[in-house]
Amino acid sequence: MPELPDKRTAFMDWYLAVVESAGVTDKRYPVKGMNVWTPYGFRARRNLDAVMVREIEATGSQAVEFPTLIPSTEFAKEKEHIKGFDAEVYWVTRGGLSELDIPLVLRPTSETAMYPIFAIWVRSHRDLPLNVYQIVNTFRYETKTTRPFLRVREIHFFEEHTCQANEAHATDRVRSNLAAFERMAAAFALPYLPVRRPEWDKFPGAFYTVALDAPLGEARVLQLGSIHHYRENFSRPYEIRYEAADGSQQFVHQTTFGLSERLLGAILAVHGDAKGAVFPTAIAPHQVVVIPIPGSDVGDAPLRAAEEIAARLARHGVRVHLDGGDERPGAKYYRWEQAGVPLRLEVGRREAESRSATTVNRLGQKGRVAFDRLEHEVGERLAEFDRALAERARAEFVASFSVARSLEELAGSTTVRVVAWCGGEECGHRIETAVDGSLLGTPEAALPIDPGAPGPCVGCGSAADVRWALAGRPL
Amino acid sequence: MPELPDKRTAFMDWYLAVVESAGVTDKRYPVKGMNVWTPYGFRARRNLDAVMVREIEATGSQAVEFPTLIPSTEFAKEKEHIKGFDAEVYWVTRGGLSELDIPLVLRPTSETAMYPIFAIWVRSHRDLPLNVYQIVNTFRYETKTTRPFLRVREIHFFEEHTCQANEAHATDRVRSNLAAFERMAAAFALPYLPVRRPEWDKFPGAFYTVALDAPLGEARVLQLGSIHHYRENFSRPYEIRYEAADGSQQFVHQTTFGLSERLLGAILAVHGDAKGAVFPTAIAPHQVVVIPIPGSDVGDAPLRAAEEIAARLARHGVRVHLDGGDERPGAKYYRWEQAGVPLRLEVGRREAESRSATTVNRLGQKGRVAFDRLEHEVGERLAEFDRALAERARAEFVASFSVARSLEELAGSTTVRVVAWCGGEECGHRIETAVDGSLLGTPEAALPIDPGAPGPCVGCGSAADVRWALAGRPL
Repeated sequence: MPELPDKRTAFMDWYLAVVESAGVTDKRYPVKGMNVWTPYGFRARRNLDAVMVREIEATGSQAVEFPTLIPSTEFAKEKEHIKGFDAEVYWVTRGGLSELDIPLVLRPTSETAMYPIFAIWVRSHRDLPLNVYQIVNTFRYETKTTRPFLRVREIHFFEEHTCQANEAHATDRVRSNLAAFERMAAAFALPYLPVRRPEWDKFPGAFYTVALDAPLGEARVLQLGSIHHYRENFSRPYEIRYEAADGSQQFVHQTTFGLSERLLGAILAVHGDAKGAVFPTAIAPHQVVVIPIPGSDVGDAPLRAAEEIAARLARHGVRVHLDGGDERPGAKYYRWEQAGVPLRLEVGRREAESRSATTVNRLGQKGRVAFDRLEHEVGERLAEFDRALAERARAEFVASFSVARSLEELAGSTTVRVVAWCGGEECGHRIETAVDGSLLGTPEAALPIDPGAPGPCVGCGSAADVRWALAGRPL
Repeated sequence: MPELPDKRTAFMDWYLAVVESAGVTDKRYPVKGMNVWTPYGFRARRNLDAVMVREIEATGSQAVEFPTLIPSTEFAKEKEHIKGFDAEVYWVTRGGLSELDIPLVLRPTSETAMYPIFAIWVRSHRDLPLNVYQIVNTFRYETKTTRPFLRVREIHFFEEHTCQANEAHATDRVRSNLAAFERMAAAFALPYLPVRRPEWDKFPGAFYTVALDAPLGEARVLQLGSIHHYRENFSRPYEIRYEAADGSQQFVHQTTFGLSERLLGAILAVHGDAKGAVFPTAIAPHQVVVIPIPGSDVGDAPLRAAEEIAARLARHGVRVHLDGGDERPGAKYYRWEQAGVPLRLEVGRREAESRSATTVNRLGQKGRVAFDRLEHEVGERLAEFDRALAERARAEFVASFSVARSLEELAGSTTVRVVAWCGGEECGHRIETAVDGSLLGTPEAALPIDPGAPGPCVGCGSAADVRWALAGRPL
């Protein structure tokens, strides 16, 4: 059986091979960057979406859905925004056999679809806050090399859009989003750092952007999502106004929170290893696979015991898959390891007789579960697995950062670098040149390593206003 | 408060007013026929989707998702199909600032997106049956007048596509789909009749089409969805072949099953009445609304009792909404009746003291529930409501059909007509002219009225091969 490329030295080759061998997508669709969600991949996506829905609805956000197509006239209303997107959108110019009077854009994101309607929905301070989200597909005419889940042309997308009474409330909403993402990331076992992007790298039209960054080995960084404070930047052109309690007319302050299928890419990239994918139990399409081990002298006792186990676990709400096919057990182990199933239960003659099953989790830890305590013990094994997975990811996360004390030290970085920065754009660009990547911005949470107090700015040597910043190579 | 138009005499005006007052959609989006799913409407849709997912997955179908955009080259492969659609699709011709080499079609349905990939997925008889479905949005450049949920340009769509080993297996799949839809329709409390469409009205490319038809008063008929047997009509152009057990190469036989947001339109149209929408509990965004009735002498006892009720019902899995706003109770009753909530609980001073609540269901039936048996009794009231709703719909369904013994009797029909038909196309068109509508086809289940044995064909008078057929005016 073919070995995967080495994750450390050939990361992208390894990633593509893991995506392939896990069976989560089919890249053979005849449009570049538009892939097929296979049954197995779709289940992972559904679990991912369920976590997002649970956590965002816990904050009082409500699901909506706006149309996919945006008239070019609306799309053009917010100048900064269109400038950021007009080279990257798909245009619908024809309906049936005739040219459209007004071309339509396939939404790259939904500000310009939603905000004309928000202007109708929001009338009074009683209508605030307006917190709505949608999970839809968005489209980007991506000219760079596409990568499944990480950079695609049709994107499975989560976007929350909110209207708040004032800047402080919008700032609170950003915090609430950060807290919701922390809970999501715990379910995904994904370590990350919220990072406030520098001015020159914020979202088009935003007042500021907090990105959710995950290191992916070497100096690579993957932006998992982002949260934006728009202030009145969109509410003014779209005239989203309300009557305050004192009778005055005020523009709302807006925020957005965006996530995407890239999270699935991050889960594959962060947790995957030399054997293939590894899914945390919250996302795993199958949490448990049960494999009967036939033998010439045991008849169908293992198969029947495996069926009993699978039926009981399913009734208990576990996503369990019984692999009763006629391949040999070794081939099944191999396949379900590639596919990232957290826990395997093996049932042979010995297990059927002793009414217990051998367990092997995706990280290689072995154990046994007794049939009469099956549901409880499988639950424990899955919790153990999740803990071990989170610890492994955390250790790699911590090891992904190191301090650079000078521009020279940034050259050839093999970790994300923590650098002292004065906040100036010129110094920022010096850092970017030195690291051959980006100044990601300033962390909005505690760094995973303790670099002490920042020394002088590595760009200009100034000691005024210096803060720790992160530099790396965005994937 | 404004009265709704009369459902019987001004059906479409009434329907549009019900959609509006229920708050399920916003039609003010600046593209005709593309509407916004409001938070309330989206919840109804989510419940609808959950029923579809539950019932189709019970038959072994798996969720997938194929891209939204289809290259024109693939789209053109199946001649009958493209002939049926090429005047009704949206074309993406531009990506960013450049013309696309190969224009892309926004899927009107996904045969031409899926089948090139099915040709890769299906290799051997072991890969069959392949039963997959997706719930996605589809697009039609609709030139007729658009109506929320009933005829729109962006359609929330359910489509199952299957590959079977032979024609008989495909026929079995059609039957399995019919059984699944019967379970769905029970949850929606929607009476309908499966009707095999005449040759000239089948789906482009189909061998035959069974439509799921619901009468909507007068002679109007709404097609809720359809199930198609494709035989080898698509597998040949797309080369979806498998190696049979005997080593021979065979083309698969295919079926599809399509449903859409039109089901929500049907629920609104069939169950709605002079007060507005009426949702069956399986679909209702709120199944129960709890309304505290303040009084000058009771303090906050009603509100606190209402909060207790809402919290307990929510814990019990009931979709409950506490309306604690400061409008007067009558205004709240009115609004939630318009919105179609199945059951209202009123909690005033008397109720707080006696620890019981007054119940009024959306059909006007009143009762009481004791706090100490709250969960159980609310469950009973909801079940009663669903039964009464289904009975009302069933009675209207039965009254929607009548027999026509001659072409003359078809003129000015105020019901769906049951007519004797020889099966000939010429006679079919005579019937269509007489009814000023369509020959819907031949029922695939027992008629709701018993017309006895068919007499001679109303078109030609022939007594050979005569069967009952349905004629009416498709909405």
